[in-house]
Amino acid sequence: MKAVRVYPPATIANLVCGFDVLGMAIDAPCDMMECRTSDTPGLRIIHTDAYALPTVPENNVAGVALLAMMEELPADTGFDLLIHKSIKPGSGLGSSAASAAGAVVAANALLEQPFSKEDLVRFAMFGEKLATGVKHADNIAPCIYGGITLIRSIFPLDIISLPAPDLFVTVVHPQIEVKTADARQILRKEVQLKQAIRQWGNIAGLVAGILQQDHALIGRSLEDVLIEPVRSILIPGFDQLKQRCLNAGALGGGISGSGPSVFMLSETAACADRVASIMQKTYDDMDVTANVYVTKIAKQGVRIELIESV
Amino acid sequence: MKAVRVYPPATIANLVCGFDVLGMAIDAPCDMMECRTSDTPGLRIIHTDAYALPTVPENNVAGVALLAMMEELPADTGFDLLIHKSIKPGSGLGSSAASAAGAVVAANALLEQPFSKEDLVRFAMFGEKLATGVKHADNIAPCIYGGITLIRSIFPLDIISLPAPDLFVTVVHPQIEVKTADARQILRKEVQLKQAIRQWGNIAGLVAGILQQDHALIGRSLEDVLIEPVRSILIPGFDQLKQRCLNAGALGGGISGSGPSVFMLSETAACADRVASIMQKTYDDMDVTANVYVTKIAKQGVRIELIESV
Repeated sequence: MKAVRVYPPATIANLVCGFDVLGMAIDAPCDMMECRTSDTPGLRIIHTDAYALPTVPENNVAGVALLAMMEELPADTGFDLLIHKSIKPGSGLGSSAASAAGAVVAANALLEQPFSKEDLVRFAMFGEKLATGVKHADNIAPCIYGGITLIRSIFPLDIISLPAPDLFVTVVHPQIEVKTADARQILRKEVQLKQAIRQWGNIAGLVAGILQQDHALIGRSLEDVLIEPVRSILIPGFDQLKQRCLNAGALGGGISGSGPSVFMLSETAACADRVASIMQKTYDDMDVTANVYVTKIAKQGVRIELIESV
Repeated sequence: MKAVRVYPPATIANLVCGFDVLGMAIDAPCDMMECRTSDTPGLRIIHTDAYALPTVPENNVAGVALLAMMEELPADTGFDLLIHKSIKPGSGLGSSAASAAGAVVAANALLEQPFSKEDLVRFAMFGEKLATGVKHADNIAPCIYGGITLIRSIFPLDIISLPAPDLFVTVVHPQIEVKTADARQILRKEVQLKQAIRQWGNIAGLVAGILQQDHALIGRSLEDVLIEPVRSILIPGFDQLKQRCLNAGALGGGISGSGPSVFMLSETAACADRVASIMQKTYDDMDVTANVYVTKIAKQGVRIELIESV
């Protein structure tokens, strides 16, 4: 039997001005999963972490993604999947996307890549549907492609892969709960045209900055006049934290996905470390437990290791 | 005395999905202007075309732009400006922007370039304010920079210059009147968030397509779910015309600025010519006089020739 170990990375959806269309993979944190082919048809899941996630495939985010793939494979296909999560569910760092993407990338590697990356995104979105009720790809796509991805359209699926800028990322995950559904609920269904124009000026600037490797432009474009003013209410200390990080030299940043994690981009490791200290201190002062990560934008998506082949 | 001749090109604002932020310069049509230094302080304007535009500098689009520049020059500075317009006012092809941009680029060339391109945009916007009541740069910037420009922000001014894709442009100017002010009036002040998301997915795709030289992506991204459905009502035959052009192989296109001109992008001269025939026939069949241009995206902005130096 063959077995692979994969490391699906955390992802930051929206990237401030790209609500529902942009996402970015980061090197840490990442999950670890092992997948092996089995003579017993069907799928069996084991969790080795402390998150008490369901192991019945139909109720498991990785499970439904892999089952969607198995619909397009011979009926006698069998997999055993071991999941060890490090990306905390509910962190706003694409935890469910990592589970779903990791599972289908692992199985595809075992089968010697019959499916394209776009196929894998299609399968993994079944996991997002289970997790959030909606098929979306703004975490799934960067998890699989690496770097930054643009979902120009979801129906039909149109994924544009953008290169990873050579930047440091500091992420803080304050241990408070923000439900994605709540974070979506508080958004207005209608927005001012004037503000929408500002938003699409910024996303256009961000994409140009990424492709022209213009870090200052990336920084200037990380502005969100529509979503952040509403959602940041759910994150204690957000405005102050952001201002302090910018004062310390960060290029820019904002809420990761629907929160509560907050990320900042920096040009140097020293700056990213300063930002980390500010983040830690801000939440220490509020007596809120917080995990802080200093990492880089991931150049690749799910990493794959072949661990066994008999 | 020194004299220069300049050729400010027509420009296509909005580029379908980039309302109020994107613009593109095209090689034809273009105006011709001659500017010479004068010992007599102040500005004198002559029009050699048939458009009966005002020649009092304070009432002339080129005049107010140049006067704005002269505010930052010695008081004894004098210019004589001759304007020969080929870009018809009210065509939606940046006629006023060409006048304003041409004047300041010409004067700057005579003075041996004391001002940056961004300064020139700043001056030329006074012309747009006179013409439309609003300072905007989505025609001015591409006229001066060439290629495609993104106005990420107008206050403060942030212009991002994008390279000109190697594409053909077919433009039709049906001789009907659409007032920019009317075209703006009919837009809703509020838009659905869902549609705004689609719009910024498209502008992000368009910018990525331009920078990655992905013509198919450029084509797919030329979709406007917000402005075109409203404004196209003012352009007879728009939907049918667009569909015919796409059927003939055009990558995509839409309303130029606030209309009534319509443009289409094509990968080959043959396709651009087919599109031209379709455009001409469509308006012939409606008994509407129409000018059709087959041209390319302009790699540079206002062209400058030194014609005299004593």
